[in-house]
Amino acid sequence: MPEQKISILTASLAVESRTAPIPEPSAKQVQIAVKSVGVCGSDIHYWEHGRIGPYVVEDDLILGHEASGVVTSVGSEVTRVAVGDRVAIEPGVPCGHCHECRVGRYNLCPDVQFFATPPVNGAFAEYVVIDENFAHAVPDSMSFDEAALIEPLSVGVWACKKANVAPGARVLVTGAGPVGILCAKVARASGAVEVTLTDVNIERLKAAESMGFTVHKSGVDSPLPEKSFTAVIECSGNIHAINTAIRAAAPASVVVLVGMAAHGNVTVPIDVIQGRELWVTGTFRYAHTYPTAIGLVSSGAVVISDLVSATYGLDSAEQALGHAHKHPEDLKVIVRVS
Amino acid sequence: MPEQKISILTASLAVESRTAPIPEPSAKQVQIAVKSVGVCGSDIHYWEHGRIGPYVVEDDLILGHEASGVVTSVGSEVTRVAVGDRVAIEPGVPCGHCHECRVGRYNLCPDVQFFATPPVNGAFAEYVVIDENFAHAVPDSMSFDEAALIEPLSVGVWACKKANVAPGARVLVTGAGPVGILCAKVARASGAVEVTLTDVNIERLKAAESMGFTVHKSGVDSPLPEKSFTAVIECSGNIHAINTAIRAAAPASVVVLVGMAAHGNVTVPIDVIQGRELWVTGTFRYAHTYPTAIGLVSSGAVVISDLVSATYGLDSAEQALGHAHKHPEDLKVIVRVS
Amino acid sequence: MPEQKISILTASLAVESRTAPIPEPSAKQVQIAVKSVGVCGSDIHYWEHGRIGPYVVEDDLILGHEASGVVTSVGSEVTRVAVGDRVAIEPGVPCGHCHECRVGRYNLCPDVQFFATPPVNGAFAEYVVIDENFAHAVPDSMSFDEAALIEPLSVGVWACKKANVAPGARVLVTGAGPVGILCAKVARASGAVEVTLTDVNIERLKAAESMGFTVHKSGVDSPLPEKSFTAVIECSGNIHAINTAIRAAAPASVVVLVGMAAHGNVTVPIDVIQGRELWVTGTFRYAHTYPTAIGLVSSGAVVISDLVSATYGLDSAEQALGHAHKHPEDLKVIVRVS
Amino acid sequence: MPEQKISILTASLAVESRTAPIPEPSAKQVQIAVKSVGVCGSDIHYWEHGRIGPYVVEDDLILGHEASGVVTSVGSEVTRVAVGDRVAIEPGVPCGHCHECRVGRYNLCPDVQFFATPPVNGAFAEYVVIDENFAHAVPDSMSFDEAALIEPLSVGVWACKKANVAPGARVLVTGAGPVGILCAKVARASGAVEVTLTDVNIERLKAAESMGFTVHKSGVDSPLPEKSFTAVIECSGNIHAINTAIRAAAPASVVVLVGMAAHGNVTVPIDVIQGRELWVTGTFRYAHTYPTAIGLVSSGAVVISDLVSATYGLDSAEQALGHAHKHPEDLKVIVRVS
Repeated sequence: MPEQKISILTASLAVESRTAPIPEPSAKQVQIAVKSVGVCGSDIHYWEHGRIGPYVVEDDLILGHEASGVVTSVGSEVTRVAVGDRVAIEPGVPCGHCHECRVGRYNLCPDVQFFATPPVNGAFAEYVVIDENFAHAVPDSMSFDEAALIEPLSVGVWACKKANVAPGARVLVTGAGPVGILCAKVARASGAVEVTLTDVNIERLKAAESMGFTVHKSGVDSPLPEKSFTAVIECSGNIHAINTAIRAAAPASVVVLVGMAAHGNVTVPIDVIQGRELWVTGTFRYAHTYPTAIGLVSSGAVVISDLVSATYGLDSAEQALGHAHKHPEDLKVIVRVS
Repeated sequence: MPEQKISILTASLAVESRTAPIPEPSAKQVQIAVKSVGVCGSDIHYWEHGRIGPYVVEDDLILGHEASGVVTSVGSEVTRVAVGDRVAIEPGVPCGHCHECRVGRYNLCPDVQFFATPPVNGAFAEYVVIDENFAHAVPDSMSFDEAALIEPLSVGVWACKKANVAPGARVLVTGAGPVGILCAKVARASGAVEVTLTDVNIERLKAAESMGFTVHKSGVDSPLPEKSFTAVIECSGNIHAINTAIRAAAPASVVVLVGMAAHGNVTVPIDVIQGRELWVTGTFRYAHTYPTAIGLVSSGAVVISDLVSATYGLDSAEQALGHAHKHPEDLKVIVRVS
Repeated sequence: MPEQKISILTASLAVESRTAPIPEPSAKQVQIAVKSVGVCGSDIHYWEHGRIGPYVVEDDLILGHEASGVVTSVGSEVTRVAVGDRVAIEPGVPCGHCHECRVGRYNLCPDVQFFATPPVNGAFAEYVVIDENFAHAVPDSMSFDEAALIEPLSVGVWACKKANVAPGARVLVTGAGPVGILCAKVARASGAVEVTLTDVNIERLKAAESMGFTVHKSGVDSPLPEKSFTAVIECSGNIHAINTAIRAAAPASVVVLVGMAAHGNVTVPIDVIQGRELWVTGTFRYAHTYPTAIGLVSSGAVVISDLVSATYGLDSAEQALGHAHKHPEDLKVIVRVS
Repeated sequence: MPEQKISILTASLAVESRTAPIPEPSAKQVQIAVKSVGVCGSDIHYWEHGRIGPYVVEDDLILGHEASGVVTSVGSEVTRVAVGDRVAIEPGVPCGHCHECRVGRYNLCPDVQFFATPPVNGAFAEYVVIDENFAHAVPDSMSFDEAALIEPLSVGVWACKKANVAPGARVLVTGAGPVGILCAKVARASGAVEVTLTDVNIERLKAAESMGFTVHKSGVDSPLPEKSFTAVIECSGNIHAINTAIRAAAPASVVVLVGMAAHGNVTVPIDVIQGRELWVTGTFRYAHTYPTAIGLVSSGAVVISDLVSATYGLDSAEQALGHAHKHPEDLKVIVRVS
């Protein structure tokens, strides 16, 4: 049985390089030789804390869910993808049969299998398998790093869609980390005529400013004017930012909560929500976003290569996690598997 | 100058019967001889506390904004309403020129003039004037009491619209006061196949049950199952009910906050909002609802006459307020002006 | 191998009673003993003409797709339905994997298998099998005839949804056959305050009138006023009716074309569509409507038992087709299989 | 009484230079010194044929409705615009009181007063007056020619909005005249990942290609694949193009008819509309689009200066009309008034 190299998080939260059998695709799956994997805040959180909310690392877990690669083998019933295809991997495969799946909201499927979410393994490995519908071909013009970042870009596509970002929008994004930056980039590509990013981290604001966005240092610059943004996307999970986000929203506009707060219960000004008839919602991953995200990068409407700040090999996955943890101003650290 | 009788709330929160000049309509206004006026919780609140949030009774104020009557005179440019028309009075007249007005959201007009909201007088009077577009003709088959209740029924029409109540909906309404009951009635008339009302007041629940709704005694009956309602309308303003409402909402559904909480800041489970991608919104009055509300009563789709529990004359307006205050289980007290 | 009785349409368009093996359910299917089957215009059309557009009866075909029954056996992976359940059968099973299925529009699946559409057999048989997700349990209070009519009622639910029929709507339905009547009934249950049906058949109009709808005899009564309906549903397929429907639509409203015209190309007033910014759309079957349709009948919001005009046994299926063909004023003929 | 120069179309369809009194603004109006006016196909049509559908040139008429200028005087109640402001003029002023105005669809106001539409005069004049809400300030960075072209750009903004053009869209625009090109530019700025323009005019296609769009020569290139575009905008008014547009639309997508056909009645494939559940609609001018259009040009998301092909003085308005008539490949001819 052929073996591959993997990087694994143990239950004692150590990261180890090991070997493991190469997974074989079932009838509707494809096998992919992994090329690039982005490090996400959730990977760091599992490594540091061993859990995210109800998801607990009780056994060995392969991290990494922002991944790209090349198809190396396909199952007997696969029709949409071929060996040799370069693909962006959509890391959550829903059941396909429940009510949420049938109405088209597969991200809310209660039985979704999502990479690097206990007990489902992720992509810090030489090979992964996935249902063919979740291996999205990308053009040759797209790098594997970019193809890996289609995953966080999908978060931005989904958030902008929920927020009704459309031509003419004035958009506020609170939190200038990678997700906030990607939301801002999608907003601009959607016709937003003004995009403002807030953060407390001056390095992140500098990066945002260099990308052409208006920036606002939370708690230092004068408060954002009330009711001034027609779409608001909250990406920090910070309680103050959530309240700022709601107060900055124009009447009848949408406030999308993307960032996860440390505690699920948060105090919000419902008198403002009522008095302006705001729509406060949240995102849980995304659905049907990969073709759009791939198209936005391919067409040049969104540039994402400028997020990559550092790269490591698969054997150095722990260093990659450590780098991302220590340098939040480095927007995206990539593990290049091969 | 002809005089009329009015009932007025003084700055010291006494209710007095007085006389005052009969108002004359301007070019686009109509003069209406008031017939019936419903007592609303907000009237009681002003009478008891002298304020609602930022609105303070600093001067004499005529209460009452749920009103009907007969047109007695029309301005020189009035074309839609004629003397003798029986009308339901829509009590908030927006500016007509601001951004909110122009996009069709006139309830969010910052310059709206709303009856019985300081410093704008209400309808506990023999005569009122209003812009012709806000005097809605009702058929002869509709009583003046019913025509007055078109106002709170409008709240229900607006809430159900925001909540996407449509055929097949399973609707939860928290709070079985007059607004909750009217929301439930509109929900049923919108094709909801299940409508559940919650309250702590057993008398209100009995009334709701007699109208054919499923009822649930908050804190006594076993908790409502999570994710079980496809539309949720919160009408109590109670913090526990707000949280119950959010937890009972099915994935991707809308939770509409109609009831005003005692404090504007409320702690809510945003992890639930995010994990289910709920839409939490609120209502501020209503817009374009009068023709619909009148049509629902005229067609028989909604019965509202069963809400009227007691009636008083204009001279007894304070007793009417007192009755409504002491007997929350009496859904609607009416002041019959003439 | 156990045998059952079936009624079959031969390629020479004769209807014959035969025996055939009883179908066995696969892992996710259920086997159903058929109880009631409604005769649809499409059944009559296949019987009379041997084809509907691109669908041609080239081989034996079992007709009937409006069906109900009792579950008699379930496949090994079935979890939602149990033996003994009384069910309404949703007769079109999509592939579940294509783009349309994944976004929730399974009625547009190009690979749907639909009862009584060549070469897929229908329900004029003692037993059928179907995917468990398409066997919808109904309460004991619902008759098997009613459960069979959930199928055409679904057409009405889907049409009203597309037409944005909501509380306050003024709805025009052109064509007072069974589908038009069911659209009208759903419209009323959705809060429409005015529902008008047109037809040339005076018997159908009498039936519609007896159900409480406003009726209009096309070509005899004075023309319907332009722009007077806020939602329009065309159920006749008649070219004049299509034009009447468009002209009667209020600005910015939706015109839903449900009836199939004899020829696919129809001349329409696009200047009216443009000048009023109408939305002209059509329906192709329905999606996600069964739970709603079942709920509307169960709750009493829609009565459908009054459509049943005549019943026949399975051996008399051809008489049932003949009856329905000769008596269009008889809204629904049912084949009672057992 | 001060006089100004105007260019006027007489009832005998001659264009003459004359003098006329300078109009004074009423209380809520502003007076504007006109700077640039674009020549529109409708101007040419009035000049050539004396009518467009029901609108007939029965008296002298000043043409021109794509206009910009500088505010020279304001009425007593004007608050939003000041003398000296550089403005784009929105040429249609609705009544503000009818149902369509109140619900926010002011473009469908039956009493709208629209520049250069008999009997309302247009902007081929040194001065015009207009309601302050329809004089939109533009930044100094925007030229007067660009500010004039905000009008046709608004048509593109409105069409893309109706067509649901959003990130990831694959858009077909039939007709590569100025309106088609502007629709295509807005589509790209809205995140469309593919924009194809069709025309029969090779010069127009060359211009479109030079702007980065995919082009398709109607009737020469192989037919467009069926179902391949997720949004379709028809800008030619050509019957063949209308049918091509419908057939090219993906399931459940929108087809927006912007171009006016020579005859109001057009034969369309309703079997395709039904079988794919398409939404066919049209546009009548636009509403609430000026701020968005100005923002798109100001932010650089849309470049419109490349449409200007030739300029003339006010005294040469007839030559400007003649130029535009003879050279359809010249996308936009401008009359520079001062």
